[in-house]
Amino acid sequence: MPELPDKTTQFIDWYLAVVEAAELTDKRYPVKGLNVWTPYGMAARRNFDRVLVREIEATGSRAVEFPTLIPETEFAKEKEHIKGFDAQVYWVTKGGATDLDTKLVLRPTSETAMYPIFALWVRSHRDLPLNVYQIVNVFRYETKTTRPFLRDREIHFFEEHTCQANEAHATERVLSNRAAFAKMARAFALPYLAIRRPEWDKFPGAYYSIGLDVPMGEARTLQIGTVHHYRENFSRPYGIQFEDADGSQRFVHQTTFGISARLLGAVVAFHGDPRGAVFPTELAPYEVVVIPIPSTESGDAPDRLAGEVADRLTRHGRRVRLDRGEERPGAKYYHWELAGAPLRLEVGRREAEQRAVHAVDRLGRKETLPLDGLEHRVDERLAEFDRALAERARVTFADAFSVAVRLEDLAGSTKVRVVSWCGREECGHRIEQAIDGSLLGTPEDPLPFATPEIGPCIGCGTIEGARWAIAARPL
Amino acid sequence: MPELPDKTTQFIDWYLAVVEAAELTDKRYPVKGLNVWTPYGMAARRNFDRVLVREIEATGSRAVEFPTLIPETEFAKEKEHIKGFDAQVYWVTKGGATDLDTKLVLRPTSETAMYPIFALWVRSHRDLPLNVYQIVNVFRYETKTTRPFLRDREIHFFEEHTCQANEAHATERVLSNRAAFAKMARAFALPYLAIRRPEWDKFPGAYYSIGLDVPMGEARTLQIGTVHHYRENFSRPYGIQFEDADGSQRFVHQTTFGISARLLGAVVAFHGDPRGAVFPTELAPYEVVVIPIPSTESGDAPDRLAGEVADRLTRHGRRVRLDRGEERPGAKYYHWELAGAPLRLEVGRREAEQRAVHAVDRLGRKETLPLDGLEHRVDERLAEFDRALAERARVTFADAFSVAVRLEDLAGSTKVRVVSWCGREECGHRIEQAIDGSLLGTPEDPLPFATPEIGPCIGCGTIEGARWAIAARPL
Repeated sequence: MPELPDKTTQFIDWYLAVVEAAELTDKRYPVKGLNVWTPYGMAARRNFDRVLVREIEATGSRAVEFPTLIPETEFAKEKEHIKGFDAQVYWVTKGGATDLDTKLVLRPTSETAMYPIFALWVRSHRDLPLNVYQIVNVFRYETKTTRPFLRDREIHFFEEHTCQANEAHATERVLSNRAAFAKMARAFALPYLAIRRPEWDKFPGAYYSIGLDVPMGEARTLQIGTVHHYRENFSRPYGIQFEDADGSQRFVHQTTFGISARLLGAVVAFHGDPRGAVFPTELAPYEVVVIPIPSTESGDAPDRLAGEVADRLTRHGRRVRLDRGEERPGAKYYHWELAGAPLRLEVGRREAEQRAVHAVDRLGRKETLPLDGLEHRVDERLAEFDRALAERARVTFADAFSVAVRLEDLAGSTKVRVVSWCGREECGHRIEQAIDGSLLGTPEDPLPFATPEIGPCIGCGTIEGARWAIAARPL
Repeated sequence: MPELPDKTTQFIDWYLAVVEAAELTDKRYPVKGLNVWTPYGMAARRNFDRVLVREIEATGSRAVEFPTLIPETEFAKEKEHIKGFDAQVYWVTKGGATDLDTKLVLRPTSETAMYPIFALWVRSHRDLPLNVYQIVNVFRYETKTTRPFLRDREIHFFEEHTCQANEAHATERVLSNRAAFAKMARAFALPYLAIRRPEWDKFPGAYYSIGLDVPMGEARTLQIGTVHHYRENFSRPYGIQFEDADGSQRFVHQTTFGISARLLGAVVAFHGDPRGAVFPTELAPYEVVVIPIPSTESGDAPDRLAGEVADRLTRHGRRVRLDRGEERPGAKYYHWELAGAPLRLEVGRREAEQRAVHAVDRLGRKETLPLDGLEHRVDERLAEFDRALAERARVTFADAFSVAVRLEDLAGSTKVRVVSWCGREECGHRIEQAIDGSLLGTPEDPLPFATPEIGPCIGCGTIEGARWAIAARPL
């Protein structure tokens, strides 16, 4: 059993080793940046999607699916947008032996596929709001180094697109999206910051963009979601307008909300530890792994009891894996810790005699559970595990940030930096240069950790307009 | 409210009108053959996928997802296969402004994406069987006229791929797939024939192919699924081999099982009637539509009762739509019949007074249901509706076939033809020419309707080797 690389000092090596050894992906596909979703990885993804669907549908959004292929003519309508993606799109130029009259883009995101149709769907104020989402694959011809889940060329993608009657309603939708994201992140026990991106880093075509960022050790962060307010930037070129109650024609205000499998990768990366992945219960392919420990004295009693336990918990609605493989118990413990299973139930000779199971959760806490009322006890153990995981995450999170008051403190930082910023682009770039990274922008909410009273801008020294901002290095 | 075209005489016009008017798809997307899945269509598709997933996972198959893009080098490995798809694939030739070194194919089906990886996954007889499936979009550059669901260029596709230790196990998997398909079709109340395709019409690279065919009125049929036995035809070029228990290296035998959204289209096409679509309960986006009928005398009592009814049935786990729209009740009845909702519950003044609902199912059967025990009564009504729909389908199905004993009876046939065939290709083509269509092949099971004793081959007159075969015209 090979050792994993050290998470703190060799983060990316550690991450790549974990996703591969846990069999979440197979990266041996012969094209770079295209990964295979293995059975275990797909099981995690199914749970991931279920949470996203549940939370977005609770806000009244409905599933749709638009085509993967977008004609060049539609793609080119919004100039800033196409400029933002031009270097990154795959082009389909041939069908069979025929050169296509109109080249097709593999969607990098679906604004330009959806909005010509939205223009047909939206006629009257009674058609608003239009809130629809899709979970599809999108494609980006990445020139940076690809990493499974974190930066792929074919991306498992959630995107909500909405049309609202006016700017205020669109702003409300942004808030609703943020609230939905908070629930998703809670299901994954993942703390994050919602940060309004600076002007020079917003989504191509957006009025403003809010990034959802997670610290990833050292001074790094990872963007795990985005919410954008488009105002009329797309509805004008695509002609999405409606007749208002007063009879006037107006353009809709639009919003989008995007999440990708990167969030799934972020959960593995954030919660993982020296022994491998740690899945919150809701995301775990198997919530409970039952392992029989055979011995000469006990005959097949442990195996039979393990089967009974697995059956009972499965009937109770839990995702259970009964591991009857030929490996030794120690090898199974190692594997299922690496694979991040929240709870393992060991059934050996003593357990068979006592009609009990030995429960060990992924944070190492142990307890013997009698078979009487086992279902309820397992529910409790899993809920406790999730609470403990969330608490551990909270501590890690708070420890990931620190305030810097001088530009020269940013170089070589081992923490994500919280700095005072006047809001001017010039100072923003000064900060970026000093940390050799990005100014992520200004947090939308009060920071969830103690900060001193705000001082003058770290870039220019003015106090006027100074607000907290977050600076980090890329992953 | 426009009339629908006549289903018998203008089948395709009727079909196109129904899928559009029922809002199952929006075909106004600016590229031919690429449709938009609307909220209503997606809801049906979600139910459709759920049935497929349930039945295939009950046989031990696990979900995976392989990349959409296949490098030309892998795609070209199995010659017969690439020949079969060469004219039909979309080519990605550029990423950003860069010409790709290796051109990429948008998968038309996933053999050539999966099998290089299967060669890495399968090492020992202990790794077998490998049974995995995916639900993804595939792409075919169709040159024939496209029709929503029935023939698209981007296709919602289910594909199972398996590796077995030997030919017999692969044959067993074919039977297991056929049994799973029987359960899926039963959920959709859809009768079909499993027909072994003639040699000249099997899947490129297959040892043999079984088509699953539904009659579509007149002499037409539609292939709604396929099961293939590949023997070693793919495992040899892709090197998928394993060490058997005796230490020898062997190539796996493979099978595949494919179903597309065409099956969803077939359900609409087969069950539909002059009033529109008819969804079996399991597939219906809304199983129950509740319609309040306001009147001056009754105030808001009907509306309140309708809300109560919808709440109760939703809590009971039913998919319910409470239609509080501004249209008149008659317009709502028309719409939900067109959209195929199995059961509509009308709540007017009399119902509000009697604490009851007036139930009308999509086959026109009416009954007043008291609120006492409503959940159970609705369950019963839906089960009865499904039984009646299946019985109606059985009658339609049996009526769609007729035996022909002379080649000249095939021309202008209004039924799918059952003929005696000696099995020789020459006679097969004679039959195809006579019916101006296809010889689908020989049924795998006894025909589910009465046939006379078999006579000599309709092509050559020999009795030796004569077996029933099915001849039909394309849709």
